Amino acid sequence: MIETKDFSMQRIATIRSCYPQRFGIPRQAGLVKSATASIVFEATRDNELAVRDIESFTHLWIVFVFHNQKYTGFKPLVQPPRLGGKKTMGVFATRSPNRPNPIGLSAVLLDSVEFTDSEILLKVKGGDFLDDTPVLDIKPYVPFADSIPQAKSEWAVSAEPVLPVIWSDTSLKQLAVAASQADDAETLKELIEETVSLDPRPAHERGQDGKPGQSWGMRVRHTDVKWQVYGGSAEIISVVVV
Amino acid sequence: MIETKDFSMQRIATIRSCYPQRFGIPRQAGLVKSATASIVFEATRDNELAVRDIESFTHLWIVFVFHNQKYTGFKPLVQPPRLGGKKTMGVFATRSPNRPNPIGLSAVLLDSVEFTDSEILLKVKGGDFLDDTPVLDIKPYVPFADSIPQAKSEWAVSAEPVLPVIWSDTSLKQLAVAASQADDAETLKELIEETVSLDPRPAHERGQDGKPGQSWGMRVRHTDVKWQVYGGSAEIISVVVV
Repeated sequence: MIETKDFSMQRIATIRSCYPQRFGIPRQAGLVKSATASIVFEATRDNELAVRDIESFTHLWIVFVFHNQKYTGFKPLVQPPRLGGKKTMGVFATRSPNRPNPIGLSAVLLDSVEFTDSEILLKVKGGDFLDDTPVLDIKPYVPFADSIPQAKSEWAVSAEPVLPVIWSDTSLKQLAVAASQADDAETLKELIEETVSLDPRPAHERGQDGKPGQSWGMRVRHTDVKWQVYGGSAEIISVVVV
Repeated sequence: MIETKDFSMQRIATIRSCYPQRFGIPRQAGLVKSATASIVFEATRDNELAVRDIESFTHLWIVFVFHNQKYTGFKPLVQPPRLGGKKTMGVFATRSPNRPNPIGLSAVLLDSVEFTDSEILLKVKGGDFLDDTPVLDIKPYVPFADSIPQAKSEWAVSAEPVLPVIWSDTSLKQLAVAASQADDAETLKELIEETVSLDPRPAHERGQDGKPGQSWGMRVRHTDVKWQVYGGSAEIISVVVV
């Protein structure tokens, strides 16, 4: 029985994500299908029982905490990047982190469940998580209650526009080196391409080429990725293992 | 910046629901379309701004706290009523309240937004809320990210079976009296029928008639509803204003 107005929530698991920094993370779940993450539980008996049968579902809800760089406090009005960063909206009409309670919600694909001596890992795809995100709850995605195809929104009507991605010769060679040092090498190229194609640049820069020599960078897994935008495309210019 | 492992969440609003008691509440959102609820915010300037533009969306996510009778602590294994109450499952493979953090999640239809001197009300339909439920967050339902028609589950594949509902002469007369005392009279009959037709009886009683003279009762809005089950139907036998 909870009687107080404040509720104390516990971290039940932690997310190991392919995105170690805030810049460049997709703005919704499901946009980058190859974005991998692990929901990491301590290998206790309770946790082992609590995840039983979870593979009966293809998709899961992850209820998480916007932490560190992702949460800058409650703002009643926000300017969603998706709308160009100029239109002001009430925060409850957006999925912005600047909510009274820093709770995030993402639907992801459940790939597999793995057990090690010390950890239980739910391996998922399609997440929009910052690495080290604290998890509050995992729920099965129940299609008959959660999937509402007739739902409509005046905003955010579709996935973001896609910027074509090309690779410089140098970056392709670097990618081969980086991929050879990783477990899931085969998906690194796809992951970088899908992520950069969402055009994570600030709203006022989107839809136009960068200035000569201007580049952007983000961390993807164990690499630092840099790209330029010109001729309406993104060119990956370096992929350096960090 | 949040550094501790515990997160303190605040009640941002409270739900005024047509279900004042736990027994009989639909087991998922969306099952009883005429189930009405108001998400009640204090009429502060911040709240007024924060709900701006929310009517751009047809549906909302309500992130709430399972409170009072709904939360009886964390149980790693639960027996979902939907599966007859006999099959044991890990709690993360269910939407049971017995989770480590008592967080509930329901998608509802947004009907209207109303402002009074002291309150801001989001009037919603299709909820599965206990009256007085504390709300932690409201998010827009974003179809392209949240609606996943291809998602599958081995359990909970469809809405619950429906028990036909009939009315005794007495109960119909009582309904007329009860409806005349309520604001949204026209929906009371529909609400009672939809709710009872989900057959809220304990799992071991479902699918069979009650014993002679046996009845069940639940509160719906301001009424106490009683019914019997025989011949494969539910007969409403009384609707008494409380």
